[in-house]
Amino acid sequence: MIKVGIVGATGYGGRELLRLLLAHPGVEIVALASTSAGGQRVDAVLPAFRKLIDLKFEAFDPGALAKQCEAVFVGVPGKESMKPVAQLRAAGARVLDIGPDFRLKDTRAFSAYYQVEHTSAEHLPGAVYGLPPWYRNALRDAQLVAVPGCYPISVILPLRPLLDAPLSEIPAVADSISGISGAGRGLKEDFHFPEMNENLKAYKVGAHQHIPEIEQELQHRMQVQFTPHVAPLTRGILSTITVRMREDFDPAPYYACYENEPFVRVLGENQLAEVKHVRGSNFCDFGWVIDKRTKNLVIVSAIDNLMGGTAGMAVQCLNIMFGLEEGAGLDWGGMAP
Amino acid sequence: MIKVGIVGATGYGGRELLRLLLAHPGVEIVALASTSAGGQRVDAVLPAFRKLIDLKFEAFDPGALAKQCEAVFVGVPGKESMKPVAQLRAAGARVLDIGPDFRLKDTRAFSAYYQVEHTSAEHLPGAVYGLPPWYRNALRDAQLVAVPGCYPISVILPLRPLLDAPLSEIPAVADSISGISGAGRGLKEDFHFPEMNENLKAYKVGAHQHIPEIEQELQHRMQVQFTPHVAPLTRGILSTITVRMREDFDPAPYYACYENEPFVRVLGENQLAEVKHVRGSNFCDFGWVIDKRTKNLVIVSAIDNLMGGTAGMAVQCLNIMFGLEEGAGLDWGGMAP
Amino acid sequence: MIKVGIVGATGYGGRELLRLLLAHPGVEIVALASTSAGGQRVDAVLPAFRKLIDLKFEAFDPGALAKQCEAVFVGVPGKESMKPVAQLRAAGARVLDIGPDFRLKDTRAFSAYYQVEHTSAEHLPGAVYGLPPWYRNALRDAQLVAVPGCYPISVILPLRPLLDAPLSEIPAVADSISGISGAGRGLKEDFHFPEMNENLKAYKVGAHQHIPEIEQELQHRMQVQFTPHVAPLTRGILSTITVRMREDFDPAPYYACYENEPFVRVLGENQLAEVKHVRGSNFCDFGWVIDKRTKNLVIVSAIDNLMGGTAGMAVQCLNIMFGLEEGAGLDWGGMAP
Amino acid sequence: MIKVGIVGATGYGGRELLRLLLAHPGVEIVALASTSAGGQRVDAVLPAFRKLIDLKFEAFDPGALAKQCEAVFVGVPGKESMKPVAQLRAAGARVLDIGPDFRLKDTRAFSAYYQVEHTSAEHLPGAVYGLPPWYRNALRDAQLVAVPGCYPISVILPLRPLLDAPLSEIPAVADSISGISGAGRGLKEDFHFPEMNENLKAYKVGAHQHIPEIEQELQHRMQVQFTPHVAPLTRGILSTITVRMREDFDPAPYYACYENEPFVRVLGENQLAEVKHVRGSNFCDFGWVIDKRTKNLVIVSAIDNLMGGTAGMAVQCLNIMFGLEEGAGLDWGGMAP
Repeated sequence: MIKVGIVGATGYGGRELLRLLLAHPGVEIVALASTSAGGQRVDAVLPAFRKLIDLKFEAFDPGALAKQCEAVFVGVPGKESMKPVAQLRAAGARVLDIGPDFRLKDTRAFSAYYQVEHTSAEHLPGAVYGLPPWYRNALRDAQLVAVPGCYPISVILPLRPLLDAPLSEIPAVADSISGISGAGRGLKEDFHFPEMNENLKAYKVGAHQHIPEIEQELQHRMQVQFTPHVAPLTRGILSTITVRMREDFDPAPYYACYENEPFVRVLGENQLAEVKHVRGSNFCDFGWVIDKRTKNLVIVSAIDNLMGGTAGMAVQCLNIMFGLEEGAGLDWGGMAP
Repeated sequence: MIKVGIVGATGYGGRELLRLLLAHPGVEIVALASTSAGGQRVDAVLPAFRKLIDLKFEAFDPGALAKQCEAVFVGVPGKESMKPVAQLRAAGARVLDIGPDFRLKDTRAFSAYYQVEHTSAEHLPGAVYGLPPWYRNALRDAQLVAVPGCYPISVILPLRPLLDAPLSEIPAVADSISGISGAGRGLKEDFHFPEMNENLKAYKVGAHQHIPEIEQELQHRMQVQFTPHVAPLTRGILSTITVRMREDFDPAPYYACYENEPFVRVLGENQLAEVKHVRGSNFCDFGWVIDKRTKNLVIVSAIDNLMGGTAGMAVQCLNIMFGLEEGAGLDWGGMAP
Repeated sequence: MIKVGIVGATGYGGRELLRLLLAHPGVEIVALASTSAGGQRVDAVLPAFRKLIDLKFEAFDPGALAKQCEAVFVGVPGKESMKPVAQLRAAGARVLDIGPDFRLKDTRAFSAYYQVEHTSAEHLPGAVYGLPPWYRNALRDAQLVAVPGCYPISVILPLRPLLDAPLSEIPAVADSISGISGAGRGLKEDFHFPEMNENLKAYKVGAHQHIPEIEQELQHRMQVQFTPHVAPLTRGILSTITVRMREDFDPAPYYACYENEPFVRVLGENQLAEVKHVRGSNFCDFGWVIDKRTKNLVIVSAIDNLMGGTAGMAVQCLNIMFGLEEGAGLDWGGMAP
Repeated sequence: MIKVGIVGATGYGGRELLRLLLAHPGVEIVALASTSAGGQRVDAVLPAFRKLIDLKFEAFDPGALAKQCEAVFVGVPGKESMKPVAQLRAAGARVLDIGPDFRLKDTRAFSAYYQVEHTSAEHLPGAVYGLPPWYRNALRDAQLVAVPGCYPISVILPLRPLLDAPLSEIPAVADSISGISGAGRGLKEDFHFPEMNENLKAYKVGAHQHIPEIEQELQHRMQVQFTPHVAPLTRGILSTITVRMREDFDPAPYYACYENEPFVRVLGENQLAEVKHVRGSNFCDFGWVIDKRTKNLVIVSAIDNLMGGTAGMAVQCLNIMFGLEEGAGLDWGGMAP
């Protein structure tokens, strides 16, 4: 049993990690740290876990965590993991950060999109971007994993294999729609139930912090016009990606790279992904349509933002890091309905 | 009081017409025809209208309707209004068709996208496309109005003023998200509550019948990559339209044409429309972002698909046709929450 | 045109009043007061009303309001209307308070359930409980109207006619389910979208402040076990009321009193009300089932909590107070879908 | 690995079983039978399971299933399992039926509530009602398990321990609210998304087929006025149960029986269950309020109707039948959000 800890398990990403890890056959949760809930029983703060866990939230103590745990997940809000991750690394812990702080290699991009200086930039070169299909080997020995963002997963997985395809140079258009859990548990008028129910909106057009992450993982060979939207559902991201073809081509061979991926399902031409088939699962599904009239290729991908988009992928990274079966604790089909 | 009739008032568009017309200060509903509900009391079929209407659904009789009514609304399913509209016109009625049959001037496009021959093509030249900002004069004397489709309204209103702007020739990308009422009341597994709740999907990519309608009203000067989506809400359409600029320009002056439009609200730069502000109203709201990094202009528009997107616009057309105050019966703000 | 003002128009009840009054044929809104939004344009704070209103929110000035307005609606949070209502009354204004402060005649009950002393108790005797079917005459000359609470409307309307029916003395059980707009616009973790979507919960069992209001209007002749619930929808209340019969009887004759009520629809035996038929309307629908096996009568009622449950009923009271047609501005059927 | 089969895996209960069993560490699915989908790949019919299962649906062959499988789950619609279950039993299979056909011992009650004669009544005496806390011993050797209905689970678990408590003899009032997945996947206008979204309704008042099931498991010592409701969510049941006390008493000691139950969580006094804490889990949570004013005890319970209310409980029964760890494959906390 791999002994793990979670720092920041009361946020939505952290709770999902807790849910997955509690049922994982090869993992034992030995410590949970929380600033807001320190000293309280986990199941008092998170009643969904009553009768499943008998721990208390502790104050954050990097040395103790490093001693107790073989791996530590960090699930604190963006821009707040730089410091604790550095402390955990200094104490010798292997760390999986589900936040954005260690994803961008370029600190100027980080500052530009996150409006803050990176205070632990020395850990960036060693951080492995935790997208298993593209970084599986590096993950085996990773000491610090930057688990990808939810939107980027849904955009990078379909686009990266096409970097050598005959595409136009104009930016891809990625219009993504997300469930509200992606916005986290912080209260905000926009996400008060009566304000968001029966509503649709776009936000941060051309300015979302996932843009540099997507373009980095497309090796800066493709620009992306990324427009995130929210719709009245809790979990799920659907990304519709329109790319312009220089000439007719068949995308299928480019996607052969995913054939043996346990959690990428290439649906094929004229097959469109839906959120319901991936909800509660670690899968990313995608398919496409070639529009001969417009000469565009339109790809539609779907993930569960909390599972395949955050916590599930973090567990998949853990499995790789510790030589467990890659799908251990993750072998769940989509929860439809 | 203008005496009106409705043919096909049990569908969602027809019900919404009934709701609006019952409260309209200048209109009296004198007849309702329905194939499925002939002979039944309106409020037995549609309990939402109990204590408001004391009529029965009648069998469709074009001559009687033309005699009783100064205007007849037709709300039957697509491809099924060709015949009754022609009969009503032959009997002398002024007709407002909320379906698609008389919107496309090009019968080949109609056949290609609707998979059926147009059997009343002789009425197409005289049919007025019922989009008041662009056809107000023609509407005054119109004998047959083809009320626009919901998606097209949300795309045409923001794009048409830009036809002379310095835009690239590549197709605009219009990713629209609709509430499920847009799919009508016909039962379908896709829209069974547990299948659609908490789901997101795209459909008819590059093949939706609103494509030729949009491009016709953009005077075939702009191609549109239109991808419709559905999200788990009942009413509302949000359209995100990405167009490529040939050079930097300010869209605001192009939109001055809408300044006095009663139901178009131009929000301006960096202001994004939301469904909640238009729900239950006849408004179309839109704003935009100029992304200097990508050289794209991203416009976001919102309507209530049943009101501003169908029945409300039909009533606005009626008001124009009969010289009533244009906003009569339509002066409702958005229903937030 | 009756000149009216609204104090506190940014809350959900106040917004709905604004929506209704802007479209009301016999009313002109001349002033809006708001503490939080003073000095700002109404349509900047409430974008749903752009192009419909050209006023600014003012600071609360009872004298000015009394001078400008023939009637003033007050829509501030519960326990906060005592003072401004008293000031408006002192300045001579006729007032309609949509909050709870003037509903309970018994100040001890008020203190017990609202945990605060009533500071304007001298206005309680003159306040008219604004439930038109039962207080229509008193409303004509009312200077202060306490518009009923949403839950109470859905429970009192079906129960009050049964006070003389052969019912058992044990308390009625009223299990009500409400949409979340009933909780107001104040942010609360419980009503953060991801917490409330796909959730169901009961709250304030045996302790809700609407209990004394219901029992007062049942003339303290019936006790009610009232359990409110919330479900993931925005608008609507469904109340299921189980009463025990002393002997078999037919409730229909007891409900004959509502035959000419414009906004009460008695559906009859084995007909159950649904929220969708009253959404966006001022109606209260109810029907019932007699369970011979258990000797219970089960009544199910439905309202739109913001319209028939608050703002619509307030407008109906206004219409009565000023001799307008009682249904003016309210003649809307249910918004299904 | 226990070899199991599923008959009728395309319905919502069957799909959930498939989801749970695919991830169960001690179970292997060896056969799936379906009338509607015979011959098709499972993952073609249920795309949520792509990359997880490599089987085809077969025609129903009781002999083959009995030979291949140590246990067969049956998930066909109500009234349709009588025959296949009898055939499976005749062929020697141990059967877990998630439908209602073998729950009621009294065939007259079955006929009265299901409007059909029971054609396999000879199997009723041996059928074990699959509610582990009350039938754990009988389950160990059960050859036929009738998995309880979803509503009954939420009502029986809180009420059965109170049979010896000082309660009044008047019927308990159980007002339950269910998500729509409980209605199954059959299309019905009531559950078309735009009809049910933003709607609330009660149905089958005093006539629901779960009434005799509840009362049987309360040993006919308590009558229940059961009113089921539906609300716009997919999964979950919340039951509010009002019982009248003969005298004051503390329910807590009566619930001590559940202390070691793995999937019953007794929250205690003034703690109310919510669906979000049990969604995606096998738990039944409940708590209560004693209302001294009315002398009623109000209990609120919550389950996930598809997991704790159907498929999860079926797996728990399987675990007991085959001596596996009782929580194997079920150790999931609630999925909030």
